[in-house]
Amino acid sequence: MRSIRKNSRKKGIEITDSPILKPGPDEVLIKIKTAGICGTDLHIYNWDKWAKNRIIPPVIMGHEFVGMIEELGSNVTYLKNGQRVSAEGHIACGNCKYCKNGQEHICKTVNIIGVDIDGCFADYLCIPANNIWPINKDIPDKYAAVFDPLGNAMHAIMVQPISMKNILITGAGSIGLFAILIAKANGAEKIIVLEPCSFKRDIAEEIGADFVYDPADKNIRKKIIKKTEGYGPDVLIEMSGSADALHLGLDVIGNGGSVSLLGIPTKKVPLDIANKIIFKGITIKGITGRKVFETWYQCEKFLLKNGKLIEPVITHYFDMEEIEKGFYLMENNKAAKVLLNINQ
Amino acid sequence: MRSIRKNSRKKGIEITDSPILKPGPDEVLIKIKTAGICGTDLHIYNWDKWAKNRIIPPVIMGHEFVGMIEELGSNVTYLKNGQRVSAEGHIACGNCKYCKNGQEHICKTVNIIGVDIDGCFADYLCIPANNIWPINKDIPDKYAAVFDPLGNAMHAIMVQPISMKNILITGAGSIGLFAILIAKANGAEKIIVLEPCSFKRDIAEEIGADFVYDPADKNIRKKIIKKTEGYGPDVLIEMSGSADALHLGLDVIGNGGSVSLLGIPTKKVPLDIANKIIFKGITIKGITGRKVFETWYQCEKFLLKNGKLIEPVITHYFDMEEIEKGFYLMENNKAAKVLLNINQ
Amino acid sequence: MRSIRKNSRKKGIEITDSPILKPGPDEVLIKIKTAGICGTDLHIYNWDKWAKNRIIPPVIMGHEFVGMIEELGSNVTYLKNGQRVSAEGHIACGNCKYCKNGQEHICKTVNIIGVDIDGCFADYLCIPANNIWPINKDIPDKYAAVFDPLGNAMHAIMVQPISMKNILITGAGSIGLFAILIAKANGAEKIIVLEPCSFKRDIAEEIGADFVYDPADKNIRKKIIKKTEGYGPDVLIEMSGSADALHLGLDVIGNGGSVSLLGIPTKKVPLDIANKIIFKGITIKGITGRKVFETWYQCEKFLLKNGKLIEPVITHYFDMEEIEKGFYLMENNKAAKVLLNINQ
Amino acid sequence: MRSIRKNSRKKGIEITDSPILKPGPDEVLIKIKTAGICGTDLHIYNWDKWAKNRIIPPVIMGHEFVGMIEELGSNVTYLKNGQRVSAEGHIACGNCKYCKNGQEHICKTVNIIGVDIDGCFADYLCIPANNIWPINKDIPDKYAAVFDPLGNAMHAIMVQPISMKNILITGAGSIGLFAILIAKANGAEKIIVLEPCSFKRDIAEEIGADFVYDPADKNIRKKIIKKTEGYGPDVLIEMSGSADALHLGLDVIGNGGSVSLLGIPTKKVPLDIANKIIFKGITIKGITGRKVFETWYQCEKFLLKNGKLIEPVITHYFDMEEIEKGFYLMENNKAAKVLLNINQ
Repeated sequence: MRSIRKNSRKKGIEITDSPILKPGPDEVLIKIKTAGICGTDLHIYNWDKWAKNRIIPPVIMGHEFVGMIEELGSNVTYLKNGQRVSAEGHIACGNCKYCKNGQEHICKTVNIIGVDIDGCFADYLCIPANNIWPINKDIPDKYAAVFDPLGNAMHAIMVQPISMKNILITGAGSIGLFAILIAKANGAEKIIVLEPCSFKRDIAEEIGADFVYDPADKNIRKKIIKKTEGYGPDVLIEMSGSADALHLGLDVIGNGGSVSLLGIPTKKVPLDIANKIIFKGITIKGITGRKVFETWYQCEKFLLKNGKLIEPVITHYFDMEEIEKGFYLMENNKAAKVLLNINQ
Repeated sequence: MRSIRKNSRKKGIEITDSPILKPGPDEVLIKIKTAGICGTDLHIYNWDKWAKNRIIPPVIMGHEFVGMIEELGSNVTYLKNGQRVSAEGHIACGNCKYCKNGQEHICKTVNIIGVDIDGCFADYLCIPANNIWPINKDIPDKYAAVFDPLGNAMHAIMVQPISMKNILITGAGSIGLFAILIAKANGAEKIIVLEPCSFKRDIAEEIGADFVYDPADKNIRKKIIKKTEGYGPDVLIEMSGSADALHLGLDVIGNGGSVSLLGIPTKKVPLDIANKIIFKGITIKGITGRKVFETWYQCEKFLLKNGKLIEPVITHYFDMEEIEKGFYLMENNKAAKVLLNINQ
Repeated sequence: MRSIRKNSRKKGIEITDSPILKPGPDEVLIKIKTAGICGTDLHIYNWDKWAKNRIIPPVIMGHEFVGMIEELGSNVTYLKNGQRVSAEGHIACGNCKYCKNGQEHICKTVNIIGVDIDGCFADYLCIPANNIWPINKDIPDKYAAVFDPLGNAMHAIMVQPISMKNILITGAGSIGLFAILIAKANGAEKIIVLEPCSFKRDIAEEIGADFVYDPADKNIRKKIIKKTEGYGPDVLIEMSGSADALHLGLDVIGNGGSVSLLGIPTKKVPLDIANKIIFKGITIKGITGRKVFETWYQCEKFLLKNGKLIEPVITHYFDMEEIEKGFYLMENNKAAKVLLNINQ
Repeated sequence: MRSIRKNSRKKGIEITDSPILKPGPDEVLIKIKTAGICGTDLHIYNWDKWAKNRIIPPVIMGHEFVGMIEELGSNVTYLKNGQRVSAEGHIACGNCKYCKNGQEHICKTVNIIGVDIDGCFADYLCIPANNIWPINKDIPDKYAAVFDPLGNAMHAIMVQPISMKNILITGAGSIGLFAILIAKANGAEKIIVLEPCSFKRDIAEEIGADFVYDPADKNIRKKIIKKTEGYGPDVLIEMSGSADALHLGLDVIGNGGSVSLLGIPTKKVPLDIANKIIFKGITIKGITGRKVFETWYQCEKFLLKNGKLIEPVITHYFDMEEIEKGFYLMENNKAAKVLLNINQ
């Protein structure tokens, strides 16, 4: 089968033949229709510091997708051939304390498809049946392909109070953009967005953020305080991984405020714990993955009701073989979510 | 009246005469019986960096106390002369969004007695009637004098899951020691304590911590992991303000773990947000003051049931004029909670 | 001054002269502009069983209003003459355990204006300054007059999970109608409404409920289950006080579902606790009053953003002297919220 | 193998031979060591109204046990022959919305061993491997056999605030007695117990309940209010299924109080919803089963630390063949938890 593989410890990928696996007794073989490119894929492509420490080539990339079940393992009875599905790409062990408590997203020994084991940038993917998420018939492929990153945004938003709260979102990549839509649909009062890239700021405005600023703006602190009646935002959703964004966010957030951290800083961030966390009474939550399957249910209901709203976030759609076009645009801040046609 | 005042911008204090104030219409005048010395008082005494930035002399020090109502302001009807009381030392504005929402502990413009305005190291204290906490008749003065720091510990513990959880407490000063007692009384599975000072480690063991370690121990990480079945503690209660303690705590804490930060770092702390907070799915809460009066009710019930347990934490009792003995012992790690006899 | 008083223990009211009170030191005198008629007022007017047990005439009726501060008590410094305000009509004692814990809405000895003490159907109202809610300049009088019932709906909705949940609202009086708007604005998936009166069903549809049914419909149970993918609604908001509505609601609600009870049944309701509450793992919350002032902040933000949406719920606007027209329409299910012009 | 079966639709049981099942690919065969008799078993034995509606004979009874794994299904890799285990007796479907969200305890189509399908009162039990709970080596068989009912009590207590709260427990059968121990170990202020049977009241006192009353006591209401400083208990744990107990509990519980309902009423209970639930702002939670496996972890930690405390609750230990002795004692209120020696 065709597959996009990281074959060697350097920048780049290869589009190459790989064998189609036979699903084990509790697994399922899926024929991929559409896949999405994640920022993580760009890190692997670029072979940056994080990738060097984590990735062991060869590995087929990709973890966002929709496809059709092609073959069922011998023990799998509740799924059907031809069923349209996506899947949770974090393969949890199932036996650690976290998994046994319904917290598979923080499993002690998780494997991620497209990172630790072969992923979905290929004609076929073999994955445990337990990870399968059947796709509702009213959700088109284009939306079904983004359950994974939409779920990241959903997870980051849904652990916070949102109704009638002022929300600051730092970073308007595709997950940050999804977060705007989710916060807006769930009753946020004002949504303020910080994003250095004008291409993404434009999308943020298009999809309904109330105030969209360039963090380079020298009056940014004052503006945010003013828009929030002098109190600062109630909630900070940090989607950029930028230390500056986090500093600004903790500086302006109101007392008793609450923070979701999803963007991954590349190095340690020095924090003024006394003045920005303790005396303000702030709560900070690290957000990883998606709650299995609570977050997926939320995303399904969101897409059924608001699916069309995500259209502006899906900026490009390429054939599988054109994937490097996607990487180029993403790297140059000219794309938000890029989808790949694998077998449409 | 006698008062312990910070009179000038240098190390030291003066014991000097101050005028007795007349309570305003919504205030109460209290004759102080017993007061407690807090680490904050030591900072002010030593005139360290924090004190230089915050304190505007002259100010009467002290915020932990028990006393008797001597005079009531004209509008105060529900309190009585001669009533034994303590008081919340954070004077909230009453009108900001936080105060109006029952979150006086994060009031936008709080004034703290003994820090921003005159405190309780004096024969008399004038304070708003709304801040008064009447003392239950079954709580002796010695315990009543520590409602404030006990409340800090209570606040830090009660925002966390404790029942059948493994708790790591870093720092066994008087508040850390109170935290041990509170966690133990509320069903913690194992309480592990890190404290560099042997005098305090001894008290921690005496009052029932399960494992008490010197953080200088080179195998400390391994030991903590072993005592927690390989998962690390469920909850971290950071009471030291030490960057090293926080690093160790975030390093060993289990996935999905929860942190209370109460100890005040003196400078910025660089945090590995990616690996220690995000991927582990950690929640961090900054703890300031006490919930008014939820925390006070909890402390009352705790003292009524477990009062005697705090005896080992109250290590010294001096006359008011001997306060510098207390500062000396605290600075040399030879005291936990030091009480002052004002008018017993 | 003009006042609408319940003067004697029988059906009816009198519009009569009452003395204008002088505000006490911690009170405020308000000149009423617009008031709202509540179902409670209709009970008092009709002198039904509940009224007979609760009301001690003479009492000036009314608790929903907007007005202007006319005079300040001597201790009131943070309000101003001429300020436009509404007020929390539950006068809490301020000293019981609940009040001291920020739960004034369940104060042990609450007095309600217009029920236990004189209310706002008059030219002037005297009320404690602590109960005052200043009205944001961007909220018109018409909306400001309904903070109280909007707050009931807000309280009932905000204690429940709403985002992407299916909500069943039983009873579409003015509070039930407000609940529809609030649930919708905060991300409810589907809102199903049961209401026997066609006048109110029409409003429910107009303001955006997804499915509006007459409970007399024999297939009602089946329809609700079908609209909720076979699981039943996630949340039940009971606004009618009808035993039948509660039975149906608990019958169709999904396992693990959550219920707000706000409608007041007139007699005991026999519940199948085993099958409808225990085995289904249901949570039921009794809702009374509004959180002070958390709910008020939420209503302010809701009205600033969505104020116009409540227009269809305000069906009538009469002069004060025409109040019995309002009672007549309400009794005959031909009105939702009726406002009174007191001094516009 | 030997088995205790309900063979026909009338009172009684038969001890009879049954075939030993072969575990399916995802199942495990367990040799039972010790089993516990539950009140549910007594209902089935007595063939009461509930049993008539639910049980379809023939069925092997029993759902509380500890045993050793005798044989593993072909797909089961993470368990071992000879491993000592208990198991969650609710066999969830694994595919409904609840199961997919980590709420197996409210699965839409649950089967319970010993009720809907064959149970553990037999030499061997076949059960899905996913339901297995490995027993910690430091927990003796006697305690390991009661994980199931201890888990019911744990579930009922752990959904409530307990620390420094006054708790009223109505009904001191074995689950009510466990609830006393769990509440006490987790910081309850005062534990008040109502139980009509003196044998059980004696155990309640022995294990440390603060006040134990006979509900026939005419001053019971007054006594409870007095012991709770005039406010009534903060939390009600209803373990009896008695309508009178629930009425009394809702009558005395303080405003804002919280209720766990676990005892199963045999018919509808008329509730004064207006005065006892809505105006008091009460929260009521129906408790069914155990959270899988969160509750099991809690029970494990509880037993490791407090195992010996449950000794007085285990009042009898009979050989399997003597089971009717156990039923006799339970029916006559002369036993709390009765264990059966199956293969010790």
